[in-house]
Amino acid sequence: MDRLARSGWARAGDAAAALPAHAGRWLAARTGWTPAGTPAAPGAVAPVPPSALPASVRAELGTIVGVEHVLVEADDRLGRSGGLSYVDLLRRRGAGDLLVPDAVVRPADPGEVGRVLAACAERGVGVVPFGGGTSVVGGVAALRGRFDSVVVLDLDRLDRLVSVDPVSRLAVLQAGVTAPRAEELLGRHGFTLGHFPQSYERATLGGFAATRSSGQASAGYGRFEDMVAGVRLATPRGDWRLGVAPASAAGPDLKHLVIGSEGAFGVITELTLRVRPKPVLTRYEGFVLDGWAAGVDAVRALTHDGVRGAVTRLSDPQETEVGFELKGGWKTRAVRGYLAARGVREPCLLIVGWEARTAAQLRAKRKATRASLRGAVALGRPVGEAWRHGRFAGPRQRDALMDQGVCVETLETAAHWSKLSELRAAVARALTAELTTAGRRPVVACHVSHTYETGASLYFTVLVPRDPEDPVGQWTRAKEAASAAIRGLGTITHHHAVGVDHAPHLAAEIGQLGVDVLRAVKRELDPEGVLNPGKLLPEDPTAPR
Amino acid sequence: MDRLARSGWARAGDAAAALPAHAGRWLAARTGWTPAGTPAAPGAVAPVPPSALPASVRAELGTIVGVEHVLVEADDRLGRSGGLSYVDLLRRRGAGDLLVPDAVVRPADPGEVGRVLAACAERGVGVVPFGGGTSVVGGVAALRGRFDSVVVLDLDRLDRLVSVDPVSRLAVLQAGVTAPRAEELLGRHGFTLGHFPQSYERATLGGFAATRSSGQASAGYGRFEDMVAGVRLATPRGDWRLGVAPASAAGPDLKHLVIGSEGAFGVITELTLRVRPKPVLTRYEGFVLDGWAAGVDAVRALTHDGVRGAVTRLSDPQETEVGFELKGGWKTRAVRGYLAARGVREPCLLIVGWEARTAAQLRAKRKATRASLRGAVALGRPVGEAWRHGRFAGPRQRDALMDQGVCVETLETAAHWSKLSELRAAVARALTAELTTAGRRPVVACHVSHTYETGASLYFTVLVPRDPEDPVGQWTRAKEAASAAIRGLGTITHHHAVGVDHAPHLAAEIGQLGVDVLRAVKRELDPEGVLNPGKLLPEDPTAPR
Repeated sequence: MDRLARSGWARAGDAAAALPAHAGRWLAARTGWTPAGTPAAPGAVAPVPPSALPASVRAELGTIVGVEHVLVEADDRLGRSGGLSYVDLLRRRGAGDLLVPDAVVRPADPGEVGRVLAACAERGVGVVPFGGGTSVVGGVAALRGRFDSVVVLDLDRLDRLVSVDPVSRLAVLQAGVTAPRAEELLGRHGFTLGHFPQSYERATLGGFAATRSSGQASAGYGRFEDMVAGVRLATPRGDWRLGVAPASAAGPDLKHLVIGSEGAFGVITELTLRVRPKPVLTRYEGFVLDGWAAGVDAVRALTHDGVRGAVTRLSDPQETEVGFELKGGWKTRAVRGYLAARGVREPCLLIVGWEARTAAQLRAKRKATRASLRGAVALGRPVGEAWRHGRFAGPRQRDALMDQGVCVETLETAAHWSKLSELRAAVARALTAELTTAGRRPVVACHVSHTYETGASLYFTVLVPRDPEDPVGQWTRAKEAASAAIRGLGTITHHHAVGVDHAPHLAAEIGQLGVDVLRAVKRELDPEGVLNPGKLLPEDPTAPR
Repeated sequence: MDRLARSGWARAGDAAAALPAHAGRWLAARTGWTPAGTPAAPGAVAPVPPSALPASVRAELGTIVGVEHVLVEADDRLGRSGGLSYVDLLRRRGAGDLLVPDAVVRPADPGEVGRVLAACAERGVGVVPFGGGTSVVGGVAALRGRFDSVVVLDLDRLDRLVSVDPVSRLAVLQAGVTAPRAEELLGRHGFTLGHFPQSYERATLGGFAATRSSGQASAGYGRFEDMVAGVRLATPRGDWRLGVAPASAAGPDLKHLVIGSEGAFGVITELTLRVRPKPVLTRYEGFVLDGWAAGVDAVRALTHDGVRGAVTRLSDPQETEVGFELKGGWKTRAVRGYLAARGVREPCLLIVGWEARTAAQLRAKRKATRASLRGAVALGRPVGEAWRHGRFAGPRQRDALMDQGVCVETLETAAHWSKLSELRAAVARALTAELTTAGRRPVVACHVSHTYETGASLYFTVLVPRDPEDPVGQWTRAKEAASAAIRGLGTITHHHAVGVDHAPHLAAEIGQLGVDVLRAVKRELDPEGVLNPGKLLPEDPTAPR
């Protein structure tokens, strides 16, 4: 098993990401940043507390999964202590408290998952389901709830492609399969899932379903929830399977109660997923629109005209600037000159990626997109391919920035088209106000990476010199300000899920009745409340303690 | 208010549908049918029982909605006694017991709906939400559950277009708006909903959402659930609103718990619906494939190639025969000759309807469809337009057939592509075996009217001479046989909903855990259990009585 260092995105053996010199110069001028060390060296965290798991429970779990799959060593537990948010990484670097589970349990199959849950429910042990551990909202934090001990249920051994139905274009995969592995397994049958979120390299299918993930190619392939044709959930009360038909009117669609349930109702063990033939041809191009309003009008028109690429991604002027300066610095001058000569004052970069099975299809798609994009300046393939090349690099860049004293984090929301610009302005204003101090000026950059007929997502990236006195509080307060700004205009989360961080905001979005309904479902499926304590649902003041 | 005669689909003033002579000849030869009278004349039902609603409750409801909107006269109550299934119509013609509500309550707005529900919960009065009353699964049957009285909550006064957001392509409409009225109201803004089920002429938006309806143009516009961007639900515990963004990862999608809830969790009062610009151009054409297998291969290829029409509908050989003989008898000989000359042995009619904003778009769509349909015989526009002309005529034809002693009913299911033909054969076999007697030979016809990437629907129409001794039992037993055949292969209902008829089969499809979850949600939102007793959920053996 991979020993997760988890003081950053990069794995132990990965080459360290470095901050290019030009990027450092820009960052210093733009934000007031000066190079600073990490708050602590990776690994220099507080001592790992001893496991509180009773020996009898450990033995019982060992009889279910095999004693070698109940891990209690410090390294194993530390590697599964929370997710990969900026604050998670700060904690693992010594800033703030780290929640360490009492053991890691690795079941081999859906049956063992169910038996582990039943045992933990009976013994009163909290269970944190764990896939790739890439949550950025506290979704895998080792909270104990009202229990004395908590185990991480690592699904890494549920790594099989169970079956493929090529006629129906369906594949059954186990929940612990990572996204790259799923593409490899499906690719042997000529299929792709088409789900490529930024967490792609590490995240698992079960996690995608549990968090309502959405990938960079959602315009072409849909959100992950659109791919889920069926689901198998292990609960303390038994196994639950859903999804006998492509569509049904047999009451409420309970799949949608499992998707997004974040391990609070049960553990997803298998998914029946819609797959598609692998595209033979892909092409990425860059375009520039002048100003945010023109950019949004363009992506809305592409969406309404039905001529988006599989990837359709619009950066606002700030993110376009960050992209030029932080990533593509060597080309910035040439591109800026080219755009200025065409009268573009506030460049907004638009990346469009098409996929097709034949050259004629690809040509037709490009032609239709370009016809809708009349007002845009075409930057051609190099810019598009540069984006594709770096599409999963963001988390590694964050490592490099963190290493040098930058507070760097992202958050996302979504709104209907008529409210999108108001929402962007409100969030940017809130973040800027909260993070600006004497000597620190934040960059708040934003892009639209997911569009729908009725609206779109907004994904914010924030860069600001880290507050060395209170690095966790610096971001936590900014995040709270952004969450307050979102309320009433958009959703608290478009694809990062609720976890711990958004739980206090859930009632404002789905109503107190909504929270009550979720609690009722949880009581029904997880009567003892052992599953993923403190995630999804805000702390229940009436729960027994 | 329209006084609903409801001994058939036709309204009081409508011209009576007649069975053409050629159709009668074919029916006699094919099924053994001989003309017979209706079991009883419309209106000749058992006397309407007196209202059991206590005077104090009636007065209280009157203070909420106005005394003139609490109806207790026999005609008003009779007109809202159940839906429009074959068995419902038989009951209203004197065969079998008719459940008559104790009053009809007509609130004016969402606030009044909520107050009516609170009052009924407090007083222990069952409430049956009622839109167009077109349920064919008992969804509006006036069951009392454990209560002494039951009222029908008629939503006909919630008939407003509340707002339109043209940028986001969203419209807020009240639940009692009928489908034709919605098209009229939206049409003034240049929009269409694109939802055209066979119940179109009468059904309401709230009913579409409550039953997970799917329309004839689902290939172009999606199922009704795909159009629901937001929902407002009145419950005995208060008002609940969902849908702030086009997509969200804020936990399970609770909209999907309200859609398909069939009035058992609350009453849908408003819907925020995705709308689209009205198409300027439409064109319908007919094609013929040779045999069921070739037909299914063709519609699957159209779906996988992404070149379906907005309407894409394949009849099996039996339904193609029924269409030729029962509806288009005057042309049958010519068409049969044309097909025979082209070597077609088992004609399966395929209707494709395209919609577009420009002639070039329409041309491109037709070209793409026809390229995918290489093996089909093109019958051109007349056949396509004939289908379009008669697309809502089915229920009126049923009236004519019922009037002359034919048992005529439909049922639907859906399955993944790899199981579709097995499912069709199993259901046809079960229906045929159950309905065949000395002198009665059923016609079991089937079509695919909704396709998905992973599968399709099957819609069966059954014609057989009515058993004069036990007309209700004749169909009830056949339906049970079909439901048993569906189990494990497909869904118990693709777009007719659960109602009373499918409730006993729900656990087999969604598991006992699924039923338990639905009960938990109902307990949370409707603690007294007054809402639509006996629908969606099978009778709860543990419920207090």
